[in-house]
Amino acid sequence: MLVVQKYGGTSVGDLERIENVAKRVAKSKDEGNSIVVVVSAMSGETNKLISYAEHFSSNPPKREMDILLSSGERVTSALLSIALNQMGYSAIALTGRQAGMVTNSTHTSARIEKIETDNIQKELDKNKIVIVAGFQGISKEGNVTTLGRGGSDLSAVAIAGALGADLCEIYTDVDGVYTTDPRIEPKAKKIEKISYDEMLEFASLGAKVLQNRSVELAKKLDVNLVTRSSFNNNSGTLITKEENIMEKPIVSGIALDKNQARITLRGVVDEPGIAASIFTNLADEGINVDMIIQNVGEDGSTNLGFTVPRDELERAKKIMLELNPAKNLEFDSNIVKVSIVGVGMKSHSGVASKAFETMAKENINIEMISTSEIKISMAIEQKYGELAVRALHEAYELDK
Amino acid sequence: MLVVQKYGGTSVGDLERIENVAKRVAKSKDEGNSIVVVVSAMSGETNKLISYAEHFSSNPPKREMDILLSSGERVTSALLSIALNQMGYSAIALTGRQAGMVTNSTHTSARIEKIETDNIQKELDKNKIVIVAGFQGISKEGNVTTLGRGGSDLSAVAIAGALGADLCEIYTDVDGVYTTDPRIEPKAKKIEKISYDEMLEFASLGAKVLQNRSVELAKKLDVNLVTRSSFNNNSGTLITKEENIMEKPIVSGIALDKNQARITLRGVVDEPGIAASIFTNLADEGINVDMIIQNVGEDGSTNLGFTVPRDELERAKKIMLELNPAKNLEFDSNIVKVSIVGVGMKSHSGVASKAFETMAKENINIEMISTSEIKISMAIEQKYGELAVRALHEAYELDK
Repeated sequence: MLVVQKYGGTSVGDLERIENVAKRVAKSKDEGNSIVVVVSAMSGETNKLISYAEHFSSNPPKREMDILLSSGERVTSALLSIALNQMGYSAIALTGRQAGMVTNSTHTSARIEKIETDNIQKELDKNKIVIVAGFQGISKEGNVTTLGRGGSDLSAVAIAGALGADLCEIYTDVDGVYTTDPRIEPKAKKIEKISYDEMLEFASLGAKVLQNRSVELAKKLDVNLVTRSSFNNNSGTLITKEENIMEKPIVSGIALDKNQARITLRGVVDEPGIAASIFTNLADEGINVDMIIQNVGEDGSTNLGFTVPRDELERAKKIMLELNPAKNLEFDSNIVKVSIVGVGMKSHSGVASKAFETMAKENINIEMISTSEIKISMAIEQKYGELAVRALHEAYELDK
Repeated sequence: MLVVQKYGGTSVGDLERIENVAKRVAKSKDEGNSIVVVVSAMSGETNKLISYAEHFSSNPPKREMDILLSSGERVTSALLSIALNQMGYSAIALTGRQAGMVTNSTHTSARIEKIETDNIQKELDKNKIVIVAGFQGISKEGNVTTLGRGGSDLSAVAIAGALGADLCEIYTDVDGVYTTDPRIEPKAKKIEKISYDEMLEFASLGAKVLQNRSVELAKKLDVNLVTRSSFNNNSGTLITKEENIMEKPIVSGIALDKNQARITLRGVVDEPGIAASIFTNLADEGINVDMIIQNVGEDGSTNLGFTVPRDELERAKKIMLELNPAKNLEFDSNIVKVSIVGVGMKSHSGVASKAFETMAKENINIEMISTSEIKISMAIEQKYGELAVRALHEAYELDK
């Protein structure tokens, strides 16, 4: 099997951990696999380099930042190769350039344009373990580029796609994707298989396991992605095409997003296009509006409510106060969003009504609702967040 | 003027020092110069990376070491560029590869084969300050290489030669080359100008300012080299062609080399080729033999004495005991070598006799002598080393 393994900063956080990673890679090699390893910088290194740059400038030139930031992954790749060679394995470290990672020229958040796999393939053909410095590439102009936060995951997925690898394993410090946060519901179970679309919903709901960009790329390139822990031998979660999942659960998991705030506008000014101007102004400032409700008050005036990320509430508030689009403005940080995710919803009815019944049984008032084909989200008062998660987890029998 | 400036690890040892270097570079730019800066890794970084590698292997693959070790200079080059840009100067950092440093494939001690100056020249033409990561290059196979200890000096000299720079300034933490070690003779004076050949003698006699490889390359490429301090504004020492030095002093300086030991063989076995086999065996082990004397003892047997570096005495001793080429073997760490260096010697007689007179006046016994066209070296008992230096320094009026 051709396997791409990616080890994150925590997994290569010190020399002992790099040694452990070497043992894992060696074991997979011994099992007969062809292996490409993508590594991050040792945890803390990238932040250290950023703090160095910030000593000189609050806005350092991005091209120079990329030369700076790309050094950490090079160090890890060389050390892992040295460790594997010492163990008697034939390994070779490749920089982003040597691995053929060609990107556009958007320094510090470059997009991968293509992967010239000749070098990697040549070394694989020699039966070598190929170790690639993640997070980095090279532009057509020959400049060093980096891919932004989570960039090493992207490197791994892109390489897996370009090589047609059987599997792309993303190693972190967690066991995989859970039916819900085990700190909230200890009965939460690890999900064995999940579709790309479900994973995308979880990622945008704040699950820290994988970033949306990587899952999107895996979906686009049809890469079988596994997220698992580098600190144990548990099997992790496979993220794959919906067609590859035989038994589709109706609901895969419950997510709780605490980074929510609500803005309520009572008595919206009766002008054409006022709603559009509200949302345009927020979008121009990069503030994502999520759930929206509109209704008519008892006096006939229009009320508008919507949610924004809580850490952007202050900026949103400033925009709203300048725009002054309603008689009365309310800003509320006291809400959370609880979501039910599952591809099975597409073909099953009654999923939403079970959610509403469960909330009612717990006397939790649903303040807003939004749905997609595979997700139901409800905004509720913050203090009920954990209770709602546990109740829904039980209602959909996710602990079974 | 086109100036190449090289800043060593101590000069860029922390963020404040990098800021100081940025100010120096800016000042030279303000004076109307075109500037290429070559930087080392921050002091301690390279040793830290080596210790990381040694955690895994006592003999790590050299190709991988080069990817590891080349990261430090990249960090410094990016940080210096960020600092200069913040100060309003247009600067650009180039990696070894981007600077066109093409080397052979001898990893960790590669030789520069050529410098493709197109990139550097293109940026200089845009009036940019070009900052090059020293110590590193790229082989024709596309692998990262490093040049070995002192490699950043070599990078600077090679770039200065390739660009036809007017000056190559090597910044360290000392003011330049002195007539002798000021810790031994406080009256020692900084030398304003010195020829390549004299500097080569000083370097091989243990002067730490510049390495032989860099001086040799400067001589070959006809690069005017200045060694000066990055911590003050003193003018440093110019190392240049002998023809460029108008007033040639007969003696330029006195060197004391404490890394000396003597091996004495009494009653050398009377076999043809025995002396040759002694020196061949030592040479095969990479031990440099320096001064040699041979004489016939009172009983008609041959005695042979020679010096080796003191830190290689144990290895030399082992070889001699295995070879057992004489009735009696003596190993003596109690000697030092004091040397008088000066191009003027070539055209002046009486230099050696003044040295011998001076030693005699101080009652110092000369145990061995060796000479070259521009150097007289004497092995003496260790305890007289500093006294001999001071006496010779005065005798040749170097304090005037």
